[in-house]
Amino acid sequence: MKIVSESKCFGGIQGVYTHSSHACQCEMTFGLFLPSAAAAGPVPVLWYLSGLTCTHENAMTKAGAQYWAAKAGLAVVFPDTSPRGDGLPDDDAYDLGQGAGFYVDATEEPWAPHFRMESYVADELPQLLIANQSLLLAAQGITGHSMGGHGALTLAMRRPEQYRSVSAFSPIANPSASEWGRKQLTAYLGPDEAKWAGHDATRLMEDVGWEGQIMIDQGTEDKFLDLLQPEALASAMARRRQPSRFRMQPGYDHSYFFVASFMADHIAFHAEALSS
Amino acid sequence: MKIVSESKCFGGIQGVYTHSSHACQCEMTFGLFLPSAAAAGPVPVLWYLSGLTCTHENAMTKAGAQYWAAKAGLAVVFPDTSPRGDGLPDDDAYDLGQGAGFYVDATEEPWAPHFRMESYVADELPQLLIANQSLLLAAQGITGHSMGGHGALTLAMRRPEQYRSVSAFSPIANPSASEWGRKQLTAYLGPDEAKWAGHDATRLMEDVGWEGQIMIDQGTEDKFLDLLQPEALASAMARRRQPSRFRMQPGYDHSYFFVASFMADHIAFHAEALSS
Repeated sequence: MKIVSESKCFGGIQGVYTHSSHACQCEMTFGLFLPSAAAAGPVPVLWYLSGLTCTHENAMTKAGAQYWAAKAGLAVVFPDTSPRGDGLPDDDAYDLGQGAGFYVDATEEPWAPHFRMESYVADELPQLLIANQSLLLAAQGITGHSMGGHGALTLAMRRPEQYRSVSAFSPIANPSASEWGRKQLTAYLGPDEAKWAGHDATRLMEDVGWEGQIMIDQGTEDKFLDLLQPEALASAMARRRQPSRFRMQPGYDHSYFFVASFMADHIAFHAEALSS
Repeated sequence: MKIVSESKCFGGIQGVYTHSSHACQCEMTFGLFLPSAAAAGPVPVLWYLSGLTCTHENAMTKAGAQYWAAKAGLAVVFPDTSPRGDGLPDDDAYDLGQGAGFYVDATEEPWAPHFRMESYVADELPQLLIANQSLLLAAQGITGHSMGGHGALTLAMRRPEQYRSVSAFSPIANPSASEWGRKQLTAYLGPDEAKWAGHDATRLMEDVGWEGQIMIDQGTEDKFLDLLQPEALASAMARRRQPSRFRMQPGYDHSYFFVASFMADHIAFHAEALSS
């Protein structure tokens, strides 16, 4: 693991690191915020998964998470959204290939050898971070924005033994039924829609749900509402009587100004679940 | 004035606007955060001037100012750092020309017809914003980072009747004596150093000082310390017994992680001065 940069931030350290990824078969970059509380003992870890076109950097610089994480004594990891590199497969569209990994392990060519973002985020990166004695990896929470909200919800419901808390900002909530999903799930997992069910928050909610609360924020002025389809997930949650806080926030759009506006609530939500 | 975007943010509006600038003879872009408090009556205005290579966007997305400004009921304006455009003069260096206006009105060719950033920030933009009934332009504060800290300190000391409060994050504190300054002041104002005195915070501190407090934060691990020369300004402030809070912050670097870490204190400092 190589240090790209380490900056003091709200008394803690905002670092950027690269490492050779076994899951993705390329060099990967991620951000890690470590609060000053880590000096006194290991701290819980919140994963923040980013959206389409993002790298590890967007949320790290724009979401305003560090102030709240510093106060709550939470580490935050900001993974990249896909494998990257000139020699790696890609697509001209902004929503497929590099920058658009969708947090699945691809089984189809040309993606399968590299695009294994579920294994990367949920298996490899936690294993890598175990070496960091400051992190309490027994207490992991997960959140994310847009494609990253999809990632957070689906990884949590797929791996309830790994994550203790889950929330999302304007998630892609029903990718099997959206142009933000059908194309990508076909490309990465093949045309058999049965294989998509485990990677669709609405279908996972119908099939398995989540033990504990789920917190979701969605702006009413989000221009991608028809692609995100929050109503599908909201209905599935309602049918299941899923413990939840699903908030349609009046006037907010899809930008990081929206994410930053409600970051305090999400950090507090995870901190409470992870410290109990 | 054209709307590029308006996003709800912490209950207020983070807007981006373009307009045809008379001072700079080109289209200019700026950001304006308007807190929800503006609905109840005009609010004081804080100017945030950015550093080398920045546009209006960097601080607007990375400095974490909106949360605190929303709480304090302060509007924040994020101007660009220079005129821009294909037909405008520029230099291959990152620290001269476009992205590096240094908040002076150039008198030398080829810069003089466009590079008039003092007039733009301190005269034209406030005039333009008077039409916005939500802004109380009688109460203006000014801050900034690096080259923008230089801009904030020098504009405030040059125009004490216009600004009621001034602060800076890691300002270029003594440009007449630094490679971040000598080259640019020569290019924009000519080789006669007498003309630079009014655009150098240290020399202005020696000559006129500031009625009221000045707040400055500087990181001790800032790799640009030798270019910023905070010690020159600190000495001039000490000799003048200038009311001030000059804080060398241990471990912090030059990044926006540093700026964000102390933004709460700067917003509170300005809010107190502007609301009294």
